[in-house]
Amino acid sequence: MSALWDPIFGRSAVASATDDRAWIRSLCQAEAALSVACEAAGLIDHTTANSIVDACTQLGNSEPAWLGAQGAADGNPVNPLVRALRAAAGPQAAASVHLGATSQDILDTASMLVSRAAIEVILRQFEACVRVCVRLAADHRDSVMTGRTLLQQAVPTTFGAVAAGWGEGLGRSAARLRALSGHLCVQLGGAAGTLAGWYPHGAEVRAAFAAELGLADPAAVWHSERSRVAELAAALGIAAASVGKVATDIVLLAQGEIGEVAESAAGTSSAMAHKHNPIAAVTARAGALQAPGLVSTVLIAAASAELQRGAGPWHAEWQPLIELLVVTGGAVERLHVSLDGLQVDRAAMASTLATLINAPVGSAADTGHARDLVDAFCKEYGR
Amino acid sequence: MSALWDPIFGRSAVASATDDRAWIRSLCQAEAALSVACEAAGLIDHTTANSIVDACTQLGNSEPAWLGAQGAADGNPVNPLVRALRAAAGPQAAASVHLGATSQDILDTASMLVSRAAIEVILRQFEACVRVCVRLAADHRDSVMTGRTLLQQAVPTTFGAVAAGWGEGLGRSAARLRALSGHLCVQLGGAAGTLAGWYPHGAEVRAAFAAELGLADPAAVWHSERSRVAELAAALGIAAASVGKVATDIVLLAQGEIGEVAESAAGTSSAMAHKHNPIAAVTARAGALQAPGLVSTVLIAAASAELQRGAGPWHAEWQPLIELLVVTGGAVERLHVSLDGLQVDRAAMASTLATLINAPVGSAADTGHARDLVDAFCKEYGR
Amino acid sequence: MSALWDPIFGRSAVASATDDRAWIRSLCQAEAALSVACEAAGLIDHTTANSIVDACTQLGNSEPAWLGAQGAADGNPVNPLVRALRAAAGPQAAASVHLGATSQDILDTASMLVSRAAIEVILRQFEACVRVCVRLAADHRDSVMTGRTLLQQAVPTTFGAVAAGWGEGLGRSAARLRALSGHLCVQLGGAAGTLAGWYPHGAEVRAAFAAELGLADPAAVWHSERSRVAELAAALGIAAASVGKVATDIVLLAQGEIGEVAESAAGTSSAMAHKHNPIAAVTARAGALQAPGLVSTVLIAAASAELQRGAGPWHAEWQPLIELLVVTGGAVERLHVSLDGLQVDRAAMASTLATLINAPVGSAADTGHARDLVDAFCKEYGR
Amino acid sequence: MSALWDPIFGRSAVASATDDRAWIRSLCQAEAALSVACEAAGLIDHTTANSIVDACTQLGNSEPAWLGAQGAADGNPVNPLVRALRAAAGPQAAASVHLGATSQDILDTASMLVSRAAIEVILRQFEACVRVCVRLAADHRDSVMTGRTLLQQAVPTTFGAVAAGWGEGLGRSAARLRALSGHLCVQLGGAAGTLAGWYPHGAEVRAAFAAELGLADPAAVWHSERSRVAELAAALGIAAASVGKVATDIVLLAQGEIGEVAESAAGTSSAMAHKHNPIAAVTARAGALQAPGLVSTVLIAAASAELQRGAGPWHAEWQPLIELLVVTGGAVERLHVSLDGLQVDRAAMASTLATLINAPVGSAADTGHARDLVDAFCKEYGR
Repeated sequence: MSALWDPIFGRSAVASATDDRAWIRSLCQAEAALSVACEAAGLIDHTTANSIVDACTQLGNSEPAWLGAQGAADGNPVNPLVRALRAAAGPQAAASVHLGATSQDILDTASMLVSRAAIEVILRQFEACVRVCVRLAADHRDSVMTGRTLLQQAVPTTFGAVAAGWGEGLGRSAARLRALSGHLCVQLGGAAGTLAGWYPHGAEVRAAFAAELGLADPAAVWHSERSRVAELAAALGIAAASVGKVATDIVLLAQGEIGEVAESAAGTSSAMAHKHNPIAAVTARAGALQAPGLVSTVLIAAASAELQRGAGPWHAEWQPLIELLVVTGGAVERLHVSLDGLQVDRAAMASTLATLINAPVGSAADTGHARDLVDAFCKEYGR
Repeated sequence: MSALWDPIFGRSAVASATDDRAWIRSLCQAEAALSVACEAAGLIDHTTANSIVDACTQLGNSEPAWLGAQGAADGNPVNPLVRALRAAAGPQAAASVHLGATSQDILDTASMLVSRAAIEVILRQFEACVRVCVRLAADHRDSVMTGRTLLQQAVPTTFGAVAAGWGEGLGRSAARLRALSGHLCVQLGGAAGTLAGWYPHGAEVRAAFAAELGLADPAAVWHSERSRVAELAAALGIAAASVGKVATDIVLLAQGEIGEVAESAAGTSSAMAHKHNPIAAVTARAGALQAPGLVSTVLIAAASAELQRGAGPWHAEWQPLIELLVVTGGAVERLHVSLDGLQVDRAAMASTLATLINAPVGSAADTGHARDLVDAFCKEYGR
Repeated sequence: MSALWDPIFGRSAVASATDDRAWIRSLCQAEAALSVACEAAGLIDHTTANSIVDACTQLGNSEPAWLGAQGAADGNPVNPLVRALRAAAGPQAAASVHLGATSQDILDTASMLVSRAAIEVILRQFEACVRVCVRLAADHRDSVMTGRTLLQQAVPTTFGAVAAGWGEGLGRSAARLRALSGHLCVQLGGAAGTLAGWYPHGAEVRAAFAAELGLADPAAVWHSERSRVAELAAALGIAAASVGKVATDIVLLAQGEIGEVAESAAGTSSAMAHKHNPIAAVTARAGALQAPGLVSTVLIAAASAELQRGAGPWHAEWQPLIELLVVTGGAVERLHVSLDGLQVDRAAMASTLATLINAPVGSAADTGHARDLVDAFCKEYGR
Repeated sequence: MSALWDPIFGRSAVASATDDRAWIRSLCQAEAALSVACEAAGLIDHTTANSIVDACTQLGNSEPAWLGAQGAADGNPVNPLVRALRAAAGPQAAASVHLGATSQDILDTASMLVSRAAIEVILRQFEACVRVCVRLAADHRDSVMTGRTLLQQAVPTTFGAVAAGWGEGLGRSAARLRALSGHLCVQLGGAAGTLAGWYPHGAEVRAAFAAELGLADPAAVWHSERSRVAELAAALGIAAASVGKVATDIVLLAQGEIGEVAESAAGTSSAMAHKHNPIAAVTARAGALQAPGLVSTVLIAAASAELQRGAGPWHAEWQPLIELLVVTGGAVERLHVSLDGLQVDRAAMASTLATLINAPVGSAADTGHARDLVDAFCKEYGR
């Protein structure tokens, strides 16, 4: 969280969804759900489970600084949290806190809870962007403009087709994230991933744990098989790229010499009053460009996870995953600002085309299936 | 292709599937399929189509050096190929070569053909690895060993559960690549992505083009919406990571001080005769570590694709995609060598456990659900 | 800044040096120095300069949230800062605030101020690590141990030579950062990088600006020639790698089966009381693994900077540079904790060597020049 | 090497300098130099050294395929090379081949020889680019044009200042690579990095080895302290970025709507005869965008090097380093093609400025110190 940078990069909402308080809440939610699951499997009694749930509720709303301070010696925040929950739950319930679990069970599960919440924030923006693209595509179904390849004028297209292409990329990103979000799993394996601590009720506890949190049951232990995290990182990276593509186009079309689009709330310059910077698109691009390096870090961590729990690679994954959620969420938020107020200059489009292509666009064939591309897109994403 | 390095990194087969000859063959296959599709839509006649197909067959088997040499001025090999095909097809058919298409249509489609062939090579190795994991998991269902977390001895698991975990990661990678391979699409949009050159038969031509090549019809133009390429890169990157994880474990378990596994064809040392290097796993790791950086490049390219065709980002994607296919294919080939001859020392496992955990493993509960994890894995992937 | 994660990854001190408050302070420091430099060049009078400096001091200590909130519309915090400084400096001085400058001048210069301060924090830790390595190397000049290559036992070395090798890598990182820190430059170019706003006193103003801040005068404008930032990122990435190498070695030598080193304040496990996790080294590794992806982002931004100021690439560079400072600083802090209390088990070293190499180490030649390597290292870095 | 792709990306010359034959030559050169160094230290006699040098000369010119084929079992080409050299050197000299060395000594040293040769190729292109920039800067010292920030027209600059800025970035890259090339070191440590095999003449042998090859003597063993390789990768990555920046500017200024520059040998389109693609700059950008991901791989490898020799990280470094040399060399070759024939349209520059800035540029002050920037650059790099 940064009060200075987050607003500039549209990160405020998604930063809240992934901040320290969100993590402590999610960690406590996971511990609470575990006790409920253990009760369901008959491993602890109702009173004990209740005491633990109460302790989790109480600590879940606490300031996170104590957890960080105490977690340094352990290398993760779960150990001190468990100690605090044991104290808060009282002597009778203490031994049943964190029953059978290892810190990775709780941290990975909390990570999925945090990711799910952040993805909801992100998806709202993607979906809003797609809606704007539907509007732009429909409004500009007949706005003929110059197609540009390798940044050279090529042959005609329509702004409707361009907007449909933008919306399709963004819509695919949203669908990919939506599908993936529905498959986010709990982690539950115990110290060496054998679910020994709940034997012979391991599968039952895991299923109940998943049900309690509304996450999927992986039917496996993924302490050091990190493809689920890598898939999430990749989906975020691709989503960020789809934002970057659109933002790049906006910045290019908004160049003074082209002037076919403009942001309505364009940025000012500290030195030049006449400037009309497409700041929302610029900052969206900036976010998008930060995702690929973060994806590579998560993949390296996945490739390096040692034996039953990584000695560094696992820990190396936490921050880049948070950052990926944040940069992707910020980028799409800024893109939405850009798109939502986008001013499209049909006359400029027509005029560039007339002057430069020097080929009057008269017959339907000149823009080929541009209108069909718009119609297909609007049909798929409209309403 | 490197006669020196490819064999060392297990890349020979996959390098063949992606080499210059594979590309020229695929480029010509795409041009041939386009003429067949145009004939199906009634845009060119049968004789013309036949002449083009013949020219494609002829040039598809030529040495690629001329294409590279002539392509430099154009920035891609399609332009000189089209010129050569026009010459080869004869004056009557010349104008119908490459009808309606842009070079990106052909290059992207060829890229998908090359990728599909390479993925087949890669998948065979992944599936072979999974089969070995099934055998290892079944054979070692009861081989109790030390679980190690943060590279410290933790509590017992079984080697069967470890092998099942390996196989599950590799099996997920195979399934992901298999699914994706079935969805690889043709590209067909024409100069500005409006399919103007085939109007009003664009959709029909694209469908026939896809059918002829056995690729999917995207029902869209993805000249500068590169999520399909990014998805492919990500799936390869995750697959490489799943190889890296297993190779890392083998290298660690093969340490002299642990000695729980050994490669049967271990490498020698130029300086030390007594060494028994797990070379196949070492070189598999080396391949796996190269994938994440390549994935990031493909994502950056996707995020930067300008307007109707990228002015650099598109071109920046070709080599990293080839490299990703090659490093992933090489890594999994080397992993298969490692796994296939893996010698598992059950006695060493038992002895480490006895000495260090100092906790006799007697009851079923000690290894929890390790056997269940093996059974579930073998049931899913067995046979 | 994260109260939860920063302490766990040793990032607290370096996070403070790069946090929102550090930035607002540095931005104001840059604006103040500019007014001093303009006064020196005779462009503004003393009273005016004083009013501006006072306004900068006042706002430099303010909460940063307002800057972020107002900066969103501009895409950077400098524009709202300039507006606030003009209000605070009073009507007479207002027009002289930010005289001739563009927001990038101030932001880049502030970035260098923040980097310099953070590098000081980082360097203290590197230098402390090198001192520990000198001690370890000297203490263990004769501690013969097994050399391990490809993670297989090879031939003898000494722990002194190992520690000297560690220290040399860390020392080189420190020297590289120290040298680079001494060359960090101001940025001063004005709206299009021609220094038009101070003409004909541009060079004079820039020199005075640099002198006032204790930064170097680049004798050039680097608005979109980002090699200076790339060099900084690279030096941090290499420094992080040198930390990662040492931390990896510690984690490996601390494996239960090897047990040649141990951390004195080893981490506990939430599930296993007997574990002795080398948590400081584990979290140092985690930090080190995060740097390469961030370096790649800064390089991509440098490769993409458009014309006189990047439309996204410049903005994409800010966060990764901060993150690089933070992860590198965190990693080396954790490594220092690990190294400083490192328990070296000479007997275990001797015993592994005796058993496994099966070659009594008697003559000096067996460890070759290991002692010479120690002596050379201690001579270079000691005292 | 790719006969298809290398010419398109300007990689032919640098690919030759780093291809299989260059490697086998360099590996043999290193083995030959070692025998000369051992003779100098009195470890082997003159006749023996001569036999080895002869064997190295003979094998150094052989086809590399046998090395790759035989190296697979060893995980590197040095072991089979040593076996072949022993056979070729004859029974008397056989035991003195590779005396005291480990395969990494030879491979790392060969890597530096290959890098040095490739850097020479690369530097020639950088220097040629700088010369063109000097010419452009001088020729266009007074060509006033629109400065563009965030891709919006800002205030005036000159094309001379722009070209000077390009040349400065490229010149810094050349200087950085030149300096680094002069410090490329031999590797010589023996099996565990203690130089035991040459004791007590280790330092003497290493110095003679370095002198024989014209490389620097590191006075250290860097088997697993990979900062030297990381520095090289970083310098190449920064050099590639400096190319990317200029290529990006050219592509942008060559847009049809701006038309202030054009490539003289612009690319054609397979679909559009009127197009005038700045293909050299486009393919230069493509190369530049591939470097950052490769740098991140080398850094990850450096961060992960285990104990006395990495079990994967070392091997993971070879290909990315070759690729970095190749993509950087290719990018700068293409940039040179672009720059060398760059057509600068002074009238278009003036006209854009007049129309859009709507501010007649009359006085010297309007372009500030643009001319001074040109003069300073030409003075530094001219001649």
